[in-house]
Amino acid sequence: MSGRLTRRTTVERRAPDGTTTRREDVLAVEEPLEIRVDGTSFSVTMRTPGHDFDLVAGFLVSEGVIWSAEQLVSLRYCAGTDDEGRQTFNVVDALLSADTPAPDISLERHVYTSSSCGICGTASIDAVHKATHFGHLDDEVTFDARLIASLPDALREQQKVFDRTGGVHAAGLFAADGSLLCLREDVGRHNAVDKVVGWALREGRLPLRGTVLQVSARASFELVQKAHMAGIPALSAVSAPSSLAVEHAESAGLTLVAFNRGGGFNTYAGAQRLT
Amino acid sequence: MSGRLTRRTTVERRAPDGTTTRREDVLAVEEPLEIRVDGTSFSVTMRTPGHDFDLVAGFLVSEGVIWSAEQLVSLRYCAGTDDEGRQTFNVVDALLSADTPAPDISLERHVYTSSSCGICGTASIDAVHKATHFGHLDDEVTFDARLIASLPDALREQQKVFDRTGGVHAAGLFAADGSLLCLREDVGRHNAVDKVVGWALREGRLPLRGTVLQVSARASFELVQKAHMAGIPALSAVSAPSSLAVEHAESAGLTLVAFNRGGGFNTYAGAQRLT
Repeated sequence: MSGRLTRRTTVERRAPDGTTTRREDVLAVEEPLEIRVDGTSFSVTMRTPGHDFDLVAGFLVSEGVIWSAEQLVSLRYCAGTDDEGRQTFNVVDALLSADTPAPDISLERHVYTSSSCGICGTASIDAVHKATHFGHLDDEVTFDARLIASLPDALREQQKVFDRTGGVHAAGLFAADGSLLCLREDVGRHNAVDKVVGWALREGRLPLRGTVLQVSARASFELVQKAHMAGIPALSAVSAPSSLAVEHAESAGLTLVAFNRGGGFNTYAGAQRLT
Repeated sequence: MSGRLTRRTTVERRAPDGTTTRREDVLAVEEPLEIRVDGTSFSVTMRTPGHDFDLVAGFLVSEGVIWSAEQLVSLRYCAGTDDEGRQTFNVVDALLSADTPAPDISLERHVYTSSSCGICGTASIDAVHKATHFGHLDDEVTFDARLIASLPDALREQQKVFDRTGGVHAAGLFAADGSLLCLREDVGRHNAVDKVVGWALREGRLPLRGTVLQVSARASFELVQKAHMAGIPALSAVSAPSSLAVEHAESAGLTLVAFNRGGGFNTYAGAQRLT
C-alpha cells in the first residue's frame, strides 16, 4: 500500500519573471472509497488512500452507526479490480456485531422525499443534526491556553504528506498534557477527522474525553459534529468557523477555538475549559 | 435576504502575548439547502445563503441533469418554516421542462448496492465519473500566462464576504481578455463553483467556451469535473491539485493550473492554451 499516498508528475513551472521550466512534482493521491456495511453500500467518499479502515470506522461513528470497538466485528477490502485486473483497494466492507442495527439507508436517503413541503425546512435541519450517543459534552478537562496556541505548529511538524505535496489536510488528536495521540492526513478535511476518530474507536478509546482535536482547515458544522459524535470536548481550527459550527458547538457543550495561528486564537464557545 | 451572508458573534480573543479581550467577530453563515427536482428531494448541501437559485441550477449542471436554460422552467423557495414560523429559505424546488428526464434518484443512490463485489472497484469509479453533455474540451482559446498569474489577486479583490469573515471560498469566471464575468462566494468551494455555473446556465451561456475559472482553494477531482460539465476549458487554483484532478483534466482536455500564487504557477494539463 506504500507509495499510494503520493504520485509523481511532470509540470510546467512558470516563475514570477515569466520563465518556464519543466520539472517533477508530487501529487497527493485522491481516489474514491466505497464504504459498505454488512455487504450493502453506504457511501462513497473521495479520499487519500491509507488508514482506510480507520476512515471507515470513523465514518460510521460520525454517522451514529457505531460508538464502541465491540460493534465493529471486522473490516476487509472487497476484491474490486481495475481494467488491468489489479486489486484497487477502493471498497471496504464493515461487518457489524449482531446486536448493532445496520444503518437504515432508506431512512437516511429518503427522509427528504417523504417530508411534506410545509415542514421541509425543519425536516432538513433535523436530518442534518445527527443523534449523538455520548450526549452533551460535560467533560471537565481544562487546557492551558499556551498549549492550545502551540497546536497548529505541533500538527504542521508532523504532516508528512503535506510536506511533499502541499495538498492535504490534517487532523491531530492531543491529550491535555500536549502529547500527540494520533495524526491523520487526507485530501478531504472531513476524512482526516474520520480517520482519527476511527483510530480511537478501534483502540477502544471512545468517548475521547480529555482530548483536543486540532485541524488544519476551517471549522465547519460538519467537523464540529464529528468531534461531538466522538465525545471530543474541544476543537481547534487554524482558519475561520462558520455560523452553524459556532451554534452547534454551543449547544453540544464543545469548546471551539478558531483562527488559531501565530500564537493567538479566538474562542467561540466553551471558554470555561481554557486556563 | 440581505444580512444572511454573515452573522455577528462575541469571541474571546487571545493575543500571542497571552492577553485576552472580548470582541465582536463576523461569521460566514452556513445553513443546509435542500434541492428538490419536480417536487422530489435530490440532495442537501451545507452552503452560505445567497444566490441559491444559481447554486441549484449549477448543481444540476454538475450532476448532468441539465445543460441549457430552456431545461429549467422555474426555481422557487418552498414554504419551509423554522420553530418560530419564519420562512427558512432553505428548500428550493427546480421544475424541469417536460422533455428533460428527471434525475434517476434510485439509480444515483443504489448503483453501489446493486453492483456485485467482484466488479465494485470499477463500478465505483464509473459512478464517480459523470457523463458530460459537452464532451471533450476542444476549445482553441488561448490565455496569456501573465493574465493567468494575475487571476488570484483579481479574485481576492472582489471577495466581499471573505474580507469580513476570512471564512469563505470564492470562484471567479474570467474571459480571455481578463474581464470578470461572475464571482460567487460560499463556505463550500464546490458550492462557489456551482453558483458560477448556475449563473451561466441561467444566462444561456453554456458551454462556457473561451473562459477560465479561478478558485481560491485547491484543485480537487470534483472541481475539475464541475468545470468539465460546464464546458469551461481552463481551471486555475491557488493551492495544490490532487492526482485524480490531474488525470481527469488530461482526459477531459482541460487546462489545469495550480499553485497559482505570487506571480508564478504550475501547469498540470493542457499547457497548449497558455501563451
